[in-house]
Amino acid sequence: MHVVITGAGGFLGQKLARRLLGGAQLTGPGGARQDVSKLTLFDVVAPAADIARDRRVKVVVGDIGEEKQVQAIVQGDVASVFHLAAVVSAGAEADFDLGMRVNLDGTRYVLEACRKLKSPPRVAFTSSVAVYGGDMPKVIKDDTPLNPQTSYGSQKAIGEFLLNDMSRKGFIDGRALRLPTIVVRPGKPNKAASTWASSIIREPLQGDTVECPVEPSAEMYVLSPRRMVDSFLHAHELPAEKLGFNRALFLPGLTVTVAQMLEGLKKAGGQTAVDRVRFVPDATIRRIVAGWPMRFDAARARGLGFKADDSFDQIVEGFVQDDLRRNAA
Amino acid sequence: MHVVITGAGGFLGQKLARRLLGGAQLTGPGGARQDVSKLTLFDVVAPAADIARDRRVKVVVGDIGEEKQVQAIVQGDVASVFHLAAVVSAGAEADFDLGMRVNLDGTRYVLEACRKLKSPPRVAFTSSVAVYGGDMPKVIKDDTPLNPQTSYGSQKAIGEFLLNDMSRKGFIDGRALRLPTIVVRPGKPNKAASTWASSIIREPLQGDTVECPVEPSAEMYVLSPRRMVDSFLHAHELPAEKLGFNRALFLPGLTVTVAQMLEGLKKAGGQTAVDRVRFVPDATIRRIVAGWPMRFDAARARGLGFKADDSFDQIVEGFVQDDLRRNAA
Repeated sequence: MHVVITGAGGFLGQKLARRLLGGAQLTGPGGARQDVSKLTLFDVVAPAADIARDRRVKVVVGDIGEEKQVQAIVQGDVASVFHLAAVVSAGAEADFDLGMRVNLDGTRYVLEACRKLKSPPRVAFTSSVAVYGGDMPKVIKDDTPLNPQTSYGSQKAIGEFLLNDMSRKGFIDGRALRLPTIVVRPGKPNKAASTWASSIIREPLQGDTVECPVEPSAEMYVLSPRRMVDSFLHAHELPAEKLGFNRALFLPGLTVTVAQMLEGLKKAGGQTAVDRVRFVPDATIRRIVAGWPMRFDAARARGLGFKADDSFDQIVEGFVQDDLRRNAA
Repeated sequence: MHVVITGAGGFLGQKLARRLLGGAQLTGPGGARQDVSKLTLFDVVAPAADIARDRRVKVVVGDIGEEKQVQAIVQGDVASVFHLAAVVSAGAEADFDLGMRVNLDGTRYVLEACRKLKSPPRVAFTSSVAVYGGDMPKVIKDDTPLNPQTSYGSQKAIGEFLLNDMSRKGFIDGRALRLPTIVVRPGKPNKAASTWASSIIREPLQGDTVECPVEPSAEMYVLSPRRMVDSFLHAHELPAEKLGFNRALFLPGLTVTVAQMLEGLKKAGGQTAVDRVRFVPDATIRRIVAGWPMRFDAARARGLGFKADDSFDQIVEGFVQDDLRRNAA
């Protein structure tokens, strides 16, 4: 079957691509599980060479904010779409028009192109816990109202409404996952206010020093890249009737303190690694992070079979195996 | 000050225009209350001749789904916009693309044109209680999650998110009102599943027979056109700081049964009028109406000074004074 990943040049897109190319099967239009025989990878940047050279892969470098480019990749025999392309939180806040173009128009173009396919494709969409905000209960539950306080969160909430309505109309068969902070991200720090949560593990294990802008008691709600890919494949496989009307849900994650994260770092890299972390408080980052929801009761997602990581140690170990050694090799 | 009304050819738009032309003052950019010196009325149809010929009025017949046309009316010295233009519920459900074009794109074009004005204008937007649906509590409260089950409701919810985010960014100063069913609508029945709620009062008072598709015990959550106009003017006048982040709210209304509505009809038109109503059950309409929320605790709106009608009798009396006699004259 032919699968499309948007945002395929990002680290999550690439991990998902590797998993699909590595033999993960998906339920196709006929209802049977199939291998991925064609994989179209769309993004503003190309994925890594080992992915791009796979004979099943077609790399298309383009702009999701251009409707014709989206129509050119979501067409013909495309059976499923993983729509991951997005401008992240800080980016959408700094450039409102860019966020609207990529996160709102781009999502709409993908859904509209899906609607034109012969049979309604399964569409898995990355939403975010940034749809919550403002006056929140201590624990976010499945019936907590969406109340985004950023352009990014607003655009993701809008994407969810479009996905729900177009699924209800039978145009697509959508699923939206509100992601926790994904830790440990490989690569370099980005502009996200949460980037330190990966940096304080990644940089010390790579032998570099790093500054931590929040105090040891600060919390994060996290999910590993491995579990994130598991979750996307699981979301794709769930029968529509198990989801019902509301196709959006937040995922189970781990709520961990910085102190607990550093314990995980110590197990993987010893005290030497922990000594590479310096606490340099940043009032802006602390304030932003303090406004994020950190406790979730993901009852619906757990009932549907989604799983958090077993421990933060396991998250660090996954990074060492999947990314640190790959890069070292 | 220069004011724009979109959807100004509709009965609500015309009533709002008459009130503004009749001397209702609005708070302008400088903070002082002013007369409306220029009123641009935009719609696919022109308003009534008595409105159109006022020298302060400029009628523009056009399509809100055309960005350039929207930019041509929301420009220059425009200080406030009442954005009422919409494809109604049944229309947006029957023609998905038309609903998206008018209700989503049209709203976005209006907000984007507002953003380009010299100072952020006050924008009053018609949302709907159709943003609620699915598994609802017995009484809708201010913290009940949005869960639209129609394309119309989804598009209105999306409009609210855009309005909130663009208000937060300081591009506009928005307010969105989720309207109850407006009763008694003048004119002819339309395609809304709620149209009978006006017809069973209007038609008998005009001397015509009418079919009522729901049982006497069926309920509706209603607001009169008079109070609706009051509410829009009040929403416009509220200082932004009283609204806070969430610019959308539902209005206080009256929950009345069909039997209570017919009592109101009897007081205005006697038993002769009531005898013109025949109960002809329609299973489709009954099912749709049964899915609508009917009980609301509009605590936030009441706290902000919005008011329901005093009684259904008063609603009927308003129709007799404002519409029946005007048409008879």
